Amino acid sequence: MLILPVSKNKILKEPIAILANGSFPRKKEPLEILNNVCTLICTDGSANTLIAKNLSPQVIIGDMDSINNKFQFKGLKIPDYNKNNTDLEKAIEWLIMNKIYKVTLLGATGNRDDMTLVNYFLLFKYFNEIDITMITDFFSISCNLGKKSFNSFKGQTVSILPKKNSIVSSKGLKFTLNNERISQDGKTLSNLSNGKSFSINCDEPILIFRSHT
Amino acid sequence: MLILPVSKNKILKEPIAILANGSFPRKKEPLEILNNVCTLICTDGSANTLIAKNLSPQVIIGDMDSINNKFQFKGLKIPDYNKNNTDLEKAIEWLIMNKIYKVTLLGATGNRDDMTLVNYFLLFKYFNEIDITMITDFFSISCNLGKKSFNSFKGQTVSILPKKNSIVSSKGLKFTLNNERISQDGKTLSNLSNGKSFSINCDEPILIFRSHT
Repeated sequence: MLILPVSKNKILKEPIAILANGSFPRKKEPLEILNNVCTLICTDGSANTLIAKNLSPQVIIGDMDSINNKFQFKGLKIPDYNKNNTDLEKAIEWLIMNKIYKVTLLGATGNRDDMTLVNYFLLFKYFNEIDITMITDFFSISCNLGKKSFNSFKGQTVSILPKKNSIVSSKGLKFTLNNERISQDGKTLSNLSNGKSFSINCDEPILIFRSHT
Repeated sequence: MLILPVSKNKILKEPIAILANGSFPRKKEPLEILNNVCTLICTDGSANTLIAKNLSPQVIIGDMDSINNKFQFKGLKIPDYNKNNTDLEKAIEWLIMNKIYKVTLLGATGNRDDMTLVNYFLLFKYFNEIDITMITDFFSISCNLGKKSFNSFKGQTVSILPKKNSIVSSKGLKFTLNNERISQDGKTLSNLSNGKSFSINCDEPILIFRSHT
């Protein structure tokens, strides 16, 4: 796989986003990111969707089994025929190899349910290596371990789901968690932010969902 | 919570489906189930969507914080104000209490990502108590433990995801699993059925996704 000398490489100018092959963003929040990104990476098939909208990525990564060959692509094409991971994983790993430590995922949910579920699990897999925020039409989703503060607004829906279990404390949320053991049963969904920020502390990785509105 | 004497109760005539409050079904397969169901249970807010389409459920279950009160509902209304579970859980548990052992879930994915993820986890939670198949626009999804055969068709996409790990064997799939330990990394996505049926044997619960086309 090609590793770029990032410092000399304008293609990887930040901010960087990956457009995966789920449903194409429809709402304002993910579309704004798509429009303002400096480097957009498509995972194979998602390039077709983008091109159909008269947009073009800077990079295409994947096993190239889905992309329409009629498209004359002038950017960087990174073929990766590894059968042991998904195109989205190939893209994330390529960024890590190129010493990029912050990326936004778009189009990572919707359409194929199996892929959607695996893409959530990817947040647990890579959060230690790269700062990933998944932006859907409804939420910003990231994985957290330890203590972290988040910018917020009063009334923002904040949902928490652990990989398995986690002991969690919170500040700045309506329903305060005080060293509580949480599981995947949904009891920690639909909490609300009290104001401009909240913080969460946990001993095992958790997904934090923050609503756009 | 009301427990019905099922044998005398025409409301729970089978087949039974629950319409959850995710995105409303758009494709042929879930819509056919919606049209042919004998008892349709709405989880609170999903009744609004159904009613807007000039359809009506037989039962509404939930904390009733979302349903539009203007609607003159003549069916069975089961208020359940328990704050420790979701409306979809309330509906599933109500069916189990009423000795119903087979149900289809519709509208359980899409829109709120946090709810979608918890709804997948519900399959792991309840599969031992009730035969649940989630039907989305793309897949039939169910949870399995032990050996089971599935009706299929040549070329059907079959994806497998464990709760955590599982040792899995398969027959009738293109990429045969032979006592292989699988995880949530996505390597067991996009297998293909060889023909009219396939079987899977596993030692820990797994989700099996079967594509409609």
